[in-house]
Amino acid sequence: MKITKLAKGISLKRPLDGGNEEQLKVVRQVLADVRAQGDAAVRTYTEKWDGFVPNELRVAKEEIEAGANALDDQLYTDLKEAADNIRLYHEQQTRTGYRLDLANGSWLGQRITALDAVGLYVPGGTAAYPSSVLMNVIPAQVAGVKRIVITSPAGRDGHLPVGVLAAAHILGVEEVYKVGGAQAIGALAYGTETIAAVDKITGPGNIFVALAKREVFGEVAIDMIAGPSEIAVLADETAFADEVAADLLSQAEHDKLACVILVTTSEELAQKVAIEVEKQLASLPREEVARASVENFGAIYIAETMADAIDAINSLAPEHLEVVTKNAEAVAEQISHAGGIFIGRYSSEPVGDYFAGTNHVLPTNSTARFASGLNVDDFVKKSSIVYYSEKTWAENAPKIARLARMEGLEGHARAVESRGWEKE
Amino acid sequence: MKITKLAKGISLKRPLDGGNEEQLKVVRQVLADVRAQGDAAVRTYTEKWDGFVPNELRVAKEEIEAGANALDDQLYTDLKEAADNIRLYHEQQTRTGYRLDLANGSWLGQRITALDAVGLYVPGGTAAYPSSVLMNVIPAQVAGVKRIVITSPAGRDGHLPVGVLAAAHILGVEEVYKVGGAQAIGALAYGTETIAAVDKITGPGNIFVALAKREVFGEVAIDMIAGPSEIAVLADETAFADEVAADLLSQAEHDKLACVILVTTSEELAQKVAIEVEKQLASLPREEVARASVENFGAIYIAETMADAIDAINSLAPEHLEVVTKNAEAVAEQISHAGGIFIGRYSSEPVGDYFAGTNHVLPTNSTARFASGLNVDDFVKKSSIVYYSEKTWAENAPKIARLARMEGLEGHARAVESRGWEKE
Repeated sequence: MKITKLAKGISLKRPLDGGNEEQLKVVRQVLADVRAQGDAAVRTYTEKWDGFVPNELRVAKEEIEAGANALDDQLYTDLKEAADNIRLYHEQQTRTGYRLDLANGSWLGQRITALDAVGLYVPGGTAAYPSSVLMNVIPAQVAGVKRIVITSPAGRDGHLPVGVLAAAHILGVEEVYKVGGAQAIGALAYGTETIAAVDKITGPGNIFVALAKREVFGEVAIDMIAGPSEIAVLADETAFADEVAADLLSQAEHDKLACVILVTTSEELAQKVAIEVEKQLASLPREEVARASVENFGAIYIAETMADAIDAINSLAPEHLEVVTKNAEAVAEQISHAGGIFIGRYSSEPVGDYFAGTNHVLPTNSTARFASGLNVDDFVKKSSIVYYSEKTWAENAPKIARLARMEGLEGHARAVESRGWEKE
Repeated sequence: MKITKLAKGISLKRPLDGGNEEQLKVVRQVLADVRAQGDAAVRTYTEKWDGFVPNELRVAKEEIEAGANALDDQLYTDLKEAADNIRLYHEQQTRTGYRLDLANGSWLGQRITALDAVGLYVPGGTAAYPSSVLMNVIPAQVAGVKRIVITSPAGRDGHLPVGVLAAAHILGVEEVYKVGGAQAIGALAYGTETIAAVDKITGPGNIFVALAKREVFGEVAIDMIAGPSEIAVLADETAFADEVAADLLSQAEHDKLACVILVTTSEELAQKVAIEVEKQLASLPREEVARASVENFGAIYIAETMADAIDAINSLAPEHLEVVTKNAEAVAEQISHAGGIFIGRYSSEPVGDYFAGTNHVLPTNSTARFASGLNVDDFVKKSSIVYYSEKTWAENAPKIARLARMEGLEGHARAVESRGWEKE
């Protein structure tokens, strides 16, 4: 990994692929076909891209159970414990609305209600992501969403991975489709004969899935446009180079476009991590992927002071941040922009990917400046409520009418003034 | 207005203009130009579309003060009282994060922080919307956003309306630009020499503004894609026809595309409202706009039962809903999808547009199924925090490693396992 001195004005950000016109054209065609032809289009694209003929788009109840039974018992127990942890963390996020009493019997309110139906996209194909099932489904369940749909591309054998089925089984999700790609997003957004439309689509996916989510945004809600994974490690001389290197590689192995950055006040650590990364890369099963990520989007920065390092991290707003320093908790408190923060050497980032309880769907590509990881708020919406009594109306109607007329909206003024007249 | 019997399967929704390819092309060109040329492009487009030469894009401090002084004293006081009401309502929405203590000294957390910088688009040109300034700025201030930018198109004289300036003055907003349209959205998203980029853009606008917000979405956050205004009134025989008609027209006068719907269990009320709408239309200054809205997107539905009426409203998910019935509060409780709910005859919808305290930026076009009105949550984001002690790590590392290996991510497993070895 290249080592650079951190200087004012250096940006740690990197340009990112937003998809090209050709990919967008494909996605738009798929979405239009799914909207017009429903299931037929979903079947055609599934056969074309996933390589099997989907006689049934929906996974049968027995298939989910069989998947759960096929999973190793220990793994089933691990998944269940992870699910419990995730549920506990997200249960802290539930909210009720409020009622604000005003004078004369009037009141204002905010009502919080769950979405009716959400679709959770679980990536797949060559890999299995049971953890994504947990991370997407549990916040929706905690929010109180009644209809939860999972959709995920099957392998060429037409089956979803047993881990994914087991996760669905653990959570009691019964509506699972073996559909992936832009056609899955189209089906969730517009509805087909088999797959009823949902109100929101969450979950990560490849560039086609990301582009499709962007296209249907507005018609349905989406969580975010997920980009490749990122990790930044903020470390001083107290950190162990092998641990830092291992954590950087844990994100590098996700994706050739993953971004792995170390910012450190210790030149010695910088040197050692660079060596460790090379060493560990050599024996990593996903070496090719991780090496591409490290070479293209890996960087080590040496900061003169911890304050400079913190500034650099805040301006990067990384998806994942590890703080491995003296007084790590106090340092972490100075971080204003990061999706997930991991404090101390025992909080290795994969702890949060799978098990601790926090969500692993986090804002990438510097969007932690304004976006949050997936959470219960993503599955509720708020209605405002106004109740004005006659007295409150009488007191305020003239003011409201004046304000409306200032904006040239006479009809608004008349509406407010129309009350209280003598009526038969 | 046309009166229809409500029957199962009737959809109250209407197709909506999502902008055409030509408009999108214009918007993309504007955004590309602003990104490449900064201020120069902003000036060019402002001159072209707003009809004045913007020597200064930023409104001088003296200009804001002069605007505030020029506003009628009574209106200034009214605006100030409205601002206080809006602040009080939104202050109920502030939240702190949480800390969840686990065994062995470990803990998880959620930290809530304000966005650094937001840009609030206030529509203008032919009309002045001081109320939009209040509705956008106040939630951001309550959230704790430090840099708040207002941008709004000036009239052909190069000045913003005094009401808009007065509202900015009341709220203490000092960064105001006389820039509108897609060029304003581009400037806020990418930054120019004069206008530094923001993290989120909120506020309604015309179709060009809406398309531009959609295009920059992802690069910055946006609140929503606002469509034309809508109102649904749910009424029984206890409602007064003239009041219902006036409220329908208050939204119809906004926009030729505004949608105004009455759902009632009373055939008599339906007939009377249809007559009243015609009568009141004749004397409305914005008759032409309101008439187009009523004729194209106005409808009265007669429901057999209140339950049917409620179902119809929930499936419509209107931006604004008035409930003018017996036991209105109980009826309102059965509404699961609506942006803003107004209970009883004295809660005329414009009460909420200007004064009561709730926000008037509300989800349109049935997006209340999944979206909320503008609120304090829109101006904060959440970071998750994990702190694992050595003991918690030791207890759980094997489980986490197993889960990682199930997903084929050996690097994740190794990262977690890398801790706790003997190190020099």
